[in-house]
Amino acid sequence: MEKHTKNTAILLMHCPDQKGLVAAVTDFLQNNNGNVLSLDQHVDRQADQFFMRVEWQLDDFAIPKDKIDDFFGTLIGRKFGMKWQLHFSNRTPRMALFVSKMSHCFYDILQRYNSGEWNVEIPLIISNHDNLKYIADPFNIPFHVFPITKENKAEQEAAEIALLRKHEIDFVVLARYMQILSDDFVDQFPNQIINIHHSFLPAFKGARPYHSAYKRGVKIIGATSHYVTADLDEGPIIAQDVASVSHKDDIHDLVRKGKDVEKVVLSQAIWLQLQRKVLPYANRTVVFD
Amino acid sequence: MEKHTKNTAILLMHCPDQKGLVAAVTDFLQNNNGNVLSLDQHVDRQADQFFMRVEWQLDDFAIPKDKIDDFFGTLIGRKFGMKWQLHFSNRTPRMALFVSKMSHCFYDILQRYNSGEWNVEIPLIISNHDNLKYIADPFNIPFHVFPITKENKAEQEAAEIALLRKHEIDFVVLARYMQILSDDFVDQFPNQIINIHHSFLPAFKGARPYHSAYKRGVKIIGATSHYVTADLDEGPIIAQDVASVSHKDDIHDLVRKGKDVEKVVLSQAIWLQLQRKVLPYANRTVVFD
Amino acid sequence: MEKHTKNTAILLMHCPDQKGLVAAVTDFLQNNNGNVLSLDQHVDRQADQFFMRVEWQLDDFAIPKDKIDDFFGTLIGRKFGMKWQLHFSNRTPRMALFVSKMSHCFYDILQRYNSGEWNVEIPLIISNHDNLKYIADPFNIPFHVFPITKENKAEQEAAEIALLRKHEIDFVVLARYMQILSDDFVDQFPNQIINIHHSFLPAFKGARPYHSAYKRGVKIIGATSHYVTADLDEGPIIAQDVASVSHKDDIHDLVRKGKDVEKVVLSQAIWLQLQRKVLPYANRTVVFD
Amino acid sequence: MEKHTKNTAILLMHCPDQKGLVAAVTDFLQNNNGNVLSLDQHVDRQADQFFMRVEWQLDDFAIPKDKIDDFFGTLIGRKFGMKWQLHFSNRTPRMALFVSKMSHCFYDILQRYNSGEWNVEIPLIISNHDNLKYIADPFNIPFHVFPITKENKAEQEAAEIALLRKHEIDFVVLARYMQILSDDFVDQFPNQIINIHHSFLPAFKGARPYHSAYKRGVKIIGATSHYVTADLDEGPIIAQDVASVSHKDDIHDLVRKGKDVEKVVLSQAIWLQLQRKVLPYANRTVVFD
Repeated sequence: MEKHTKNTAILLMHCPDQKGLVAAVTDFLQNNNGNVLSLDQHVDRQADQFFMRVEWQLDDFAIPKDKIDDFFGTLIGRKFGMKWQLHFSNRTPRMALFVSKMSHCFYDILQRYNSGEWNVEIPLIISNHDNLKYIADPFNIPFHVFPITKENKAEQEAAEIALLRKHEIDFVVLARYMQILSDDFVDQFPNQIINIHHSFLPAFKGARPYHSAYKRGVKIIGATSHYVTADLDEGPIIAQDVASVSHKDDIHDLVRKGKDVEKVVLSQAIWLQLQRKVLPYANRTVVFD
Repeated sequence: MEKHTKNTAILLMHCPDQKGLVAAVTDFLQNNNGNVLSLDQHVDRQADQFFMRVEWQLDDFAIPKDKIDDFFGTLIGRKFGMKWQLHFSNRTPRMALFVSKMSHCFYDILQRYNSGEWNVEIPLIISNHDNLKYIADPFNIPFHVFPITKENKAEQEAAEIALLRKHEIDFVVLARYMQILSDDFVDQFPNQIINIHHSFLPAFKGARPYHSAYKRGVKIIGATSHYVTADLDEGPIIAQDVASVSHKDDIHDLVRKGKDVEKVVLSQAIWLQLQRKVLPYANRTVVFD
Repeated sequence: MEKHTKNTAILLMHCPDQKGLVAAVTDFLQNNNGNVLSLDQHVDRQADQFFMRVEWQLDDFAIPKDKIDDFFGTLIGRKFGMKWQLHFSNRTPRMALFVSKMSHCFYDILQRYNSGEWNVEIPLIISNHDNLKYIADPFNIPFHVFPITKENKAEQEAAEIALLRKHEIDFVVLARYMQILSDDFVDQFPNQIINIHHSFLPAFKGARPYHSAYKRGVKIIGATSHYVTADLDEGPIIAQDVASVSHKDDIHDLVRKGKDVEKVVLSQAIWLQLQRKVLPYANRTVVFD
Repeated sequence: MEKHTKNTAILLMHCPDQKGLVAAVTDFLQNNNGNVLSLDQHVDRQADQFFMRVEWQLDDFAIPKDKIDDFFGTLIGRKFGMKWQLHFSNRTPRMALFVSKMSHCFYDILQRYNSGEWNVEIPLIISNHDNLKYIADPFNIPFHVFPITKENKAEQEAAEIALLRKHEIDFVVLARYMQILSDDFVDQFPNQIINIHHSFLPAFKGARPYHSAYKRGVKIIGATSHYVTADLDEGPIIAQDVASVSHKDDIHDLVRKGKDVEKVVLSQAIWLQLQRKVLPYANRTVVFD
């Protein structure tokens, strides 16, 4: 697959809804010779909030890349009370992977990474076990093992955070990482940690969701990718999907069928994140898909 | 569509798992010249329970219809500690409909009834309002209005039950009936009342599930048909289905999209019930589909 | 449900892609005090075409309703070589229904119409049989029967067209209408006739798709709503959906399961049409959903 | 995951429908102290054919393993004109993988193999390129490269077949293998070669289905796993699944989204094959799932 070498900028923004927001942004781009490639906007009438994602060609854009943020902030952003993010598509996002012992999401991510499906760098993998190290090795991605106990958790997390900072990680993916991150850890990466939960949230929060699903006798199971917040399994949902099950499926079957949903839903969330298409707001997400 | 005039018997049975169950039943049928049309069995290894549904041709069956239950019970059922139900497909099941003000499930059911899709009698409709009476009238189905207040609930339910008994109702369908039936009512119709809940249970139990779904920011909504038990929204699940939603959908959109799922899932449960394909056990169902 | 009384205008437009399109349109609205409620755009890179849907509040809009089309055309549309449609949301679209003998889509549509789910007028129903007249009667919608034979087809279609014109119909819905419209008929309503085909197009075009699906042994069946063109079952697709089937399903089961998909997919297409969210282009559709 | 060490036998059988089939088989098992673990039967009324899958415990079974086939054939099979297969679950099926340059199905299969999700041996991988060899190497599975040209095709296929015979392969999986096998090859492995076709068959047979799907403007794409027959993309379908697409998806997006469907559908077919749950008949399959 071709390398992703678009020379574009992407703005994600939100602010209280008000007149003239789209015109203001599109004028800013048009007046400076920025060709809009795609534009998506959304107004949440209940919250009275405006959301927008716009991507434009940088080739003939009059404002130098390193000044766009300042110009946009001064001319548009602060005027309308916006929060915004500016991304450049020729800067490859840097993602850290956290894994434990289950390999299905891990392989799925590595396959996409390796085949060029995603424009991403994976500078490091972190695990609380060394079980999956042999899978990472052929990809030449450093695999760091941080065993976690009650006693060493704070210390180990500090070391992990240091490593993430050192590698200038943009976001973290918990690919069935079986440890709960401390609030301190989570606070340092607001809406930058993507988890896959093996249930159709908000059903079956917490541990052993397939056992609970079996016990309840549901006919459909699911998986949910979401940003991690201090509130366990309560963060903004990015993507969900489901699979049919029947009385014939015991817990092992639910686990087996669930894995297929988990890996697809997690990779879908990563794809959206890499495309800068997710805008979390309150406890929800706007997904410009 | 052709009338359903199969001359068959259906046995639904369950008991502790043990050797020779299938052979015992199929021998019983074979020895008495009963041609098996379909046979489904299931063993729940966790509960160590055996479940089976078998349908056979009655035309040349050696045991007269009115003695089959006695013969089966004596020769097979009691020997293996079974619970069983015997149904004859040329007896049309009798279903009572409970409705309130929302018409989507109601129309859906009436269309299937009227077009001959289902082999069912609907001797009466019960509602706590008269809003939908005009819809029932062209079908010539008696529409009984029982307004419910805190004060008259026991009395009104007693009248409803009397009516159901008088009409020899086999099962009741709550087609978005917006009253909670009392435990007394429910106890009289164990696993004979089918409800449609407008969420993907066990998520969003109770009132206003679409509001809760909106608030949580889910990306998929669902509907669940289940047998009513004394425990609200906790009865055995018969069928579930889902629909995708996005940040663009406000609560009205969730309600609109949800209705399509509700009506299909409720009618699917009714279809399974009419085919004698559902066997509730503990708080789960075996659906021989 | 509340009546849909938004006072908004909707522009659907497309033209060869070029710089400044979004800015030009949003400036036009902003400069005339039109508050944008929603804006969706799409660029088809392969065809190098730009598509856009924008809806704005008319309350304080400086240009009178009856002049908007002229002003937009002069200031924007012709300048960029656009094709556009202008709609006002307080004008209720007028839809004609064509039916034959199958009632599932018909009921589904009438229920939505009657419950206020859709903002639509249905001034007339046309059928080649009178079988379903009794269903329409309680809704007080005139039901016109035009039996079609080889000999009278041209004449009958002319009468139908006259009726559609007289009632100022915006679009026609073929709700399992079992006649093929002549090219002459179709030509008079370009992209204004919505059909439901009972297969997952382009598989199983033409007659008896469920029989073909059964014969092929597929594990999934589907339905497709599309605009009718002179090329049978080849028009632009608006919506599709599917249902799982198995070896247990005979042709009757496929038909039964398929009906549920058909009615939901057809009603979804009608909903999109009523929202002015479908923009056909070449043999495809842009659906601003 | 635990090793699959059930000591059971599985019989798959089909024959013209007639009375007493189920009783005959279950008596045979019961009389010889074989505890039935699961039994599924199906009657195709149109073809008047009976199908059955039964699995039973071998521990106390009176007939020695190596004589079961003879006893069953003599006492039951030939009497009823059956075709049957006998499998033992403690014999691990042997699967050969054919790949070319695309790795998504390949990784997916290797992950399941490696994590113990499947009870399978993969004695060899065959490819017409060496591109994916480095992926197979860490798993220590011999990777044989057979470049195919028009000139050498017969010769190379003969070598491949020899290798498959030598390794006593039970079935072959084409994991996006981009060569069409000759009729001679296919004839040697009737219903033993599973292919994944990257469309929702029978739509878009042959080459470049995503391009065709894009051109047709479909709203749903799919994938189909099927047994390979001499008739290209026309063999018995084992499993299918779909994914939603929109006007926003260009061909690259269809390919990307399609890959997720392909790998899940192919692995689902392999799972069914390993469980001995698929019974092809005419050009259809009975899937005892």
